[in-house]
Amino acid sequence: MSKLVLFGVGRGADVAYRFLSADTEHDIVGFTVDDKYRNRNELRGLPVVAFEEVERHFPPDDFRMLILLGYQGMNALRQQKYDAAKAKGYTLESYVASDFFRVEPIAVGENCFIMDNQSISLDVAIGNNVVMWSSNHVGDLTTIADHAWITSHVTLAAGVTVGERAFLGIGCTVSNNVAIGDDTLVGAHALIAADTAPRSVHLHGHDTIDVEARAFMRMMMAQKKL
Amino acid sequence: MSKLVLFGVGRGADVAYRFLSADTEHDIVGFTVDDKYRNRNELRGLPVVAFEEVERHFPPDDFRMLILLGYQGMNALRQQKYDAAKAKGYTLESYVASDFFRVEPIAVGENCFIMDNQSISLDVAIGNNVVMWSSNHVGDLTTIADHAWITSHVTLAAGVTVGERAFLGIGCTVSNNVAIGDDTLVGAHALIAADTAPRSVHLHGHDTIDVEARAFMRMMMAQKKL
Amino acid sequence: MSKLVLFGVGRGADVAYRFLSADTEHDIVGFTVDDKYRNRNELRGLPVVAFEEVERHFPPDDFRMLILLGYQGMNALRQQKYDAAKAKGYTLESYVASDFFRVEPIAVGENCFIMDNQSISLDVAIGNNVVMWSSNHVGDLTTIADHAWITSHVTLAAGVTVGERAFLGIGCTVSNNVAIGDDTLVGAHALIAADTAPRSVHLHGHDTIDVEARAFMRMMMAQKKL
Repeated sequence: MSKLVLFGVGRGADVAYRFLSADTEHDIVGFTVDDKYRNRNELRGLPVVAFEEVERHFPPDDFRMLILLGYQGMNALRQQKYDAAKAKGYTLESYVASDFFRVEPIAVGENCFIMDNQSISLDVAIGNNVVMWSSNHVGDLTTIADHAWITSHVTLAAGVTVGERAFLGIGCTVSNNVAIGDDTLVGAHALIAADTAPRSVHLHGHDTIDVEARAFMRMMMAQKKL
Repeated sequence: MSKLVLFGVGRGADVAYRFLSADTEHDIVGFTVDDKYRNRNELRGLPVVAFEEVERHFPPDDFRMLILLGYQGMNALRQQKYDAAKAKGYTLESYVASDFFRVEPIAVGENCFIMDNQSISLDVAIGNNVVMWSSNHVGDLTTIADHAWITSHVTLAAGVTVGERAFLGIGCTVSNNVAIGDDTLVGAHALIAADTAPRSVHLHGHDTIDVEARAFMRMMMAQKKL
Repeated sequence: MSKLVLFGVGRGADVAYRFLSADTEHDIVGFTVDDKYRNRNELRGLPVVAFEEVERHFPPDDFRMLILLGYQGMNALRQQKYDAAKAKGYTLESYVASDFFRVEPIAVGENCFIMDNQSISLDVAIGNNVVMWSSNHVGDLTTIADHAWITSHVTLAAGVTVGERAFLGIGCTVSNNVAIGDDTLVGAHALIAADTAPRSVHLHGHDTIDVEARAFMRMMMAQKKL
C-alpha cells in the first residue's frame, strides 16, 4: 500500500483514480499537473498541486506517483512526464489489475498501467511506463520495452519484442519472434508477420505506409480516429 | 432474486436456463411460448404456458420475464417479443455474467443477456434487449443501442456507438469514435474504421456489400453460415 | 489429485510443471524422456527416467502421465508419444486452468492442456491430447478432435468441427458450422469461412496456399515464424 499522487486532471487521471480506488489498497492523497493546466485546486475532494512544486507538498520519500496520460506524440509526452517525475526522485507505482490468472508474479517496471482480463504467459518482461488496456494476450518469452502502449484484444505470439514507445492498435496480431521497432505504429486489426522498422506505420489491408508514425498519429488523433 | 418466466422452448431458452441456474439466484418458475409453437406442457419439470395467456399464470406484478431468442430478421423477432412482453406489463430481467472484472456497476437496460469473460471499460451504456456472447471488449464511453447483438471476441474501441438491432459478427473490430448504423450487419473478422449506413453489410476483405442487411442475414442463415 | 510423471525435459515440460504446481493439487513425482534425449538425471529436484523403462519406476497403476510437447510435424510427434504412453497402460492427465468461467463441467479427453482465460460455450466436446493456449473462444456445439492445437485469441463460432491434428494460429476466426479438416494449418489472423480440406494451408490475405501443411509448418518453424 502506497500513499499516492496521481498526475493529471483529465480522463487519464480519472480512469486511474477509479481503477485504483476499486481494485487496490493505495491511499490516493492528491493530484498534480503542470501549473498552466491547473484549472482547479481540488478534485474528488483532494488537493491539486502544481507539478513544479509537487515535492514540497508530497515529498518523494513519503509519497509515490502514478502518471496515466494518453499516447499522443507516439507516447513522447508520457515519457517526458515519466522522466520528469523520476528526476524529482519519485518512485512510480505500477497498477496491474487483480482479476486475471497468473501462474507466477508478472515482471513489470515502474508506472505501468495494466488493466483487466489479460492473459500473460510465462517469462514475459514488461518495462517501465507501459500501458496495456484490456484483454490482451502476451505470449511466452515476450519483452515489452519502456513507454509502449498496447490497446485491447491485441495478440502477441511467443518471443515477440515490442520496442520503446510502440503503439499497438486494437485487435492487432503479432507473429512469433517478430521484433516491433521503436516508435512503430500498428493500426487496428493489422497482422504483423515480420520485423518492423523504427517509426514505421502498418495498417490492416495495406502494405507498410510510407509515413512517419508520429505524423500519422497526429493526423489520426485530429480526426478522432485514434 | 426474481421469480422468472423464460420465453421459448428452444435453444435460446435452454442456454438461458443453464446460465441462470448456474450463475444467479433467480427462481425459474416456467416457460412461455406462442401457443402455436407450444409442443409440450412441461420442460425441465416446469410448466410451459401459452404466451397469449402468460399473465394469467404468472402475473407481471409477481413475476419477471427473460427472452433469449436468435438474431434472425436482424433481431426483429427479438424486438417484437420484447415489445409484446413490455405491453403485457412485465419487467424484463437482465443477466450479466458474474465472472468478469468490473470497476463499477455496468449500466444495462432490461432483457440483456451478457455472457462470460467480457472486458467492459468505464462509462459504457448498454440499452435494452442487447445480447453479448463471450469475450468481447467494449471500450470507454461506448454506447450500445436497444436490440443489438454482439457475438464473441468483438473489439469496440473507445467512443463507439452501436445502432439499434445491429449485428456484430465474431472477431470484428470497430475503431475509435465510429458510429455503427441501425440494422448494420458486420461480418466475421471485419474491420470497421468509418461510420456505417443503416441496413448496410460489411464483410472482411470486401468493400461494403451492396445488399440490405436483413436479406443478407436471411441468405446466410439459410446456408447455416450465421 | 494424481501422482504425476511429466514427459520431457524441455520447454513444454517446464511450462506444464509451472502451471500444474501453481494451479492444481497434483503431486509431480518425476520426468521421463526418450533415453537418447535424457541429458540429466534430475530436474527441479526430481528424477528424470528413460521413457523406455518409465513403467518400472512409475507403474501405470499408481501413476499418471502428462505430455506437453510442441506442434512440430503437425502434431505428429505429440500423437506418437501420446499413443506410446497409452500403449504402456498409462492414464493421461488433463489440465484445465481453474480461472475461467464455466456454467457446466467441460468435456475433455485425456492429456489435454487448456490454459487460462478461455470462454467455452455450452455443449462443446474436446477430444484427447488437445492443446489450447490462452484466451480462446469456443462457441456452442463445437467439437475439437484429438491432437489439435489451438494457439491464443482464436475464435470458433458455433457448430464448428476441428479435425485431428489441426493447427489454428493466433487470432484466427472460424465461422459458424465450418468443418476444419484433419491436419489443416490455419495461419495467424486468418478468417476461415468455408470447410477446409485435409492437410491444407490457409493464410491471412491469401487464397488457400497450394502446399501440404506439414511441409509448410516445417519451413515456418525453421524460420522461427511458428
